[in-house]
Amino acid sequence: MSVRAGIVVTGTEVLTGRVADRNGPWVADRLLELGVELAHITICGDRAADIEAQLRFLAAEGVDLIVTTGGLGPTADDMTVEIVARFCGRELTLDAELEAKIAAILKNLMSRFSGVNFEDVRAANRKQAMVPVDAHVLDPVGTAPGVVVPGTPTVLVLPGPPRELQAMWPAAIADDAVQQAIAGRTVYRQDTVRMFGLAESGLAETLREAENIPGFAGLEITTCLRRGEVEMVTRYEPHSAEVYAQLMDLVRARHGEMVFSEDGSLIDDQIARLLAGRRIATAESCTAGLLAARLTDQPGSSAYVAGAVVAYGNEAKVDVLGVDPALIDANGAVSQEVAEAMAAGALRRFGADTAVAITGIAGPGGGTEAKPVGTVWFCVMLADGSTVTRPVHLPGERADIRERSTTVAMHLLRRTLLGLRS
Amino acid sequence: MSVRAGIVVTGTEVLTGRVADRNGPWVADRLLELGVELAHITICGDRAADIEAQLRFLAAEGVDLIVTTGGLGPTADDMTVEIVARFCGRELTLDAELEAKIAAILKNLMSRFSGVNFEDVRAANRKQAMVPVDAHVLDPVGTAPGVVVPGTPTVLVLPGPPRELQAMWPAAIADDAVQQAIAGRTVYRQDTVRMFGLAESGLAETLREAENIPGFAGLEITTCLRRGEVEMVTRYEPHSAEVYAQLMDLVRARHGEMVFSEDGSLIDDQIARLLAGRRIATAESCTAGLLAARLTDQPGSSAYVAGAVVAYGNEAKVDVLGVDPALIDANGAVSQEVAEAMAAGALRRFGADTAVAITGIAGPGGGTEAKPVGTVWFCVMLADGSTVTRPVHLPGERADIRERSTTVAMHLLRRTLLGLRS
Repeated sequence: MSVRAGIVVTGTEVLTGRVADRNGPWVADRLLELGVELAHITICGDRAADIEAQLRFLAAEGVDLIVTTGGLGPTADDMTVEIVARFCGRELTLDAELEAKIAAILKNLMSRFSGVNFEDVRAANRKQAMVPVDAHVLDPVGTAPGVVVPGTPTVLVLPGPPRELQAMWPAAIADDAVQQAIAGRTVYRQDTVRMFGLAESGLAETLREAENIPGFAGLEITTCLRRGEVEMVTRYEPHSAEVYAQLMDLVRARHGEMVFSEDGSLIDDQIARLLAGRRIATAESCTAGLLAARLTDQPGSSAYVAGAVVAYGNEAKVDVLGVDPALIDANGAVSQEVAEAMAAGALRRFGADTAVAITGIAGPGGGTEAKPVGTVWFCVMLADGSTVTRPVHLPGERADIRERSTTVAMHLLRRTLLGLRS
Repeated sequence: MSVRAGIVVTGTEVLTGRVADRNGPWVADRLLELGVELAHITICGDRAADIEAQLRFLAAEGVDLIVTTGGLGPTADDMTVEIVARFCGRELTLDAELEAKIAAILKNLMSRFSGVNFEDVRAANRKQAMVPVDAHVLDPVGTAPGVVVPGTPTVLVLPGPPRELQAMWPAAIADDAVQQAIAGRTVYRQDTVRMFGLAESGLAETLREAENIPGFAGLEITTCLRRGEVEMVTRYEPHSAEVYAQLMDLVRARHGEMVFSEDGSLIDDQIARLLAGRRIATAESCTAGLLAARLTDQPGSSAYVAGAVVAYGNEAKVDVLGVDPALIDANGAVSQEVAEAMAAGALRRFGADTAVAITGIAGPGGGTEAKPVGTVWFCVMLADGSTVTRPVHLPGERADIRERSTTVAMHLLRRTLLGLRS
């Protein structure tokens, strides 16, 4: 038996894409952690009929819990509680204790602003103290309280600001009615495997083969191409752990060293660990700093990142990285020779022990028949002289090629630092 | 009369929040531009029953057009076309011409991978050539074709990768059946104004004042804080153009030089124009290449971007940018003096005529009482010696501070190049 939930995200600014919704994915994650199966996320604007239609839809789909986000503010376009009350067939009633709580919060807030009439504000916020009969109130984090309306389905009404919603979540989940709604949930395991250098269709082939493993249907597998890597996420009940182990034996047998992560760790995390005790510098042409920026996304990266030279023009390659201009004349700026000279220049310039150089054609201009747009040379060079240099042809447009280049560089760096065949 | 649409976003990775959905907001924006009213966005995983339930829900709500995204790949969890066909009551049939097209694309793609059996891949992708009877096929951008199934509602089936979806959009909208489905739409104008250095609440104040303009209710205004800028988007029917002009007079009177764009152009576009004929170099500490990467996002930027030095450690600031170590000892690396020395170093090192330096504390560590996390010094220096240096305290976490720093730098650069008071 499993428990299913739906999320209703309200707000015209979210529906129209002006503001990215952060609540749907966050609540989805929490529900999955709890073992609740999420069936639907629906997004609508601040229109009563549309919000109500989504509630009816989710109830008709038989979900056990509906979580709504947004629409709890004091203005006229905030109407979630009213609509949920109607949907659940309950009257709204003023909660005097809650009203006093909100008034105290507002008084405190208002003391920071001058020229605001406290009584006006309090009247506007009185509506936030109106709750459906016999609903449970969740104490406000900002000024808006949350509400739980027990029933089939149980409806959990949460505020829109992500900070408020997230702070309210523990109390929401601890609520009796919510606990009862999700009581029948199944605890799932979830494992993530990441691969690099593999086409998604190659993995599809392996998964078709895996259908012969007894109990395979107990694994819920999703695959996804992401930043040039293939990610495979598998959810399963604990009794299917042995089936998952057999699947992984097959994946390892078929794709071997392409599997770089079996514990969900990102290439970025792995590189951060591998660089401990080292000093890295990058020399970047087409990526123009994206690799340095990606390496320093990690807090604490100043311990191992020395710096970078973005040598966008040939002059910079010569003047700042010390690339021999004759190499550029003879081979072009996008070549094995120049990639290696750039890496050597980065090692020298920063006194580093690890360097990555990238030189390529991101387009849209600059391609030739011999070196079309998407041609990128990579070089990883260590202070002991070991050097790995590779050309790659990357698909897509300028932004894709630049972004993808950083991923290729991360993987080449990983394999070199681990001493794997590249 | 108005035309309503719904968007169905499929994909377990999106439903569960592992991948942020970029298609819903993007399609929402395009539909609004066209004058189509968006009623609902629904998100579900790769489960046939859930996808079908969402299609039925939107049809029952009376939308004229359903746009689906995702689920067109070669693997078993990609099932959108099959479900749409069933929903529309049509058989699937093999489109031989389309199959040949996909095969040609795959052959080309596969040449980049070794050890992949082309016939295996082709078999896996054969299902991508199965389309509902009498549906219209939209040529693949990647390997997945789009499909339009005419009817009430008309269903437009688009691929999940944003790059493919966006490239396919013009053909999708030009399709006869789609045109017919949205024929009754209202044509709106949409204007975008961007401001920098203004709190969103300051604009809210101005908009309250604007309520006195006769006909103001005919403007549909959304405001949004985005990358540190305030964006105001106004949608209106053509007969309200004069009202919008009056609103803009008021906005200009109240916020003057904070308004940097009235035609929707981004600061990035403006900087690209202002840098024509110049040579710019950046010297970056906390942003570690993000500004150089942002400048070179623009195709053709090699004409004016010389390069960058990411001087993450103090040694790099001294060795590569020639910053006097005594300046760092006396003032700290995050200071006016070091920002200016870094800019001067970038000018010299790259023979540039325009330099931007950024040095700051992105956190989570490294903050002090005098210089808390978020303290960032910016310097813009031109070859004629003119120099503008500013400290800014930025809110948020590491990633926010780094990202926001690039925006502050872009605006400081704009004002300096235009000779405006900074």
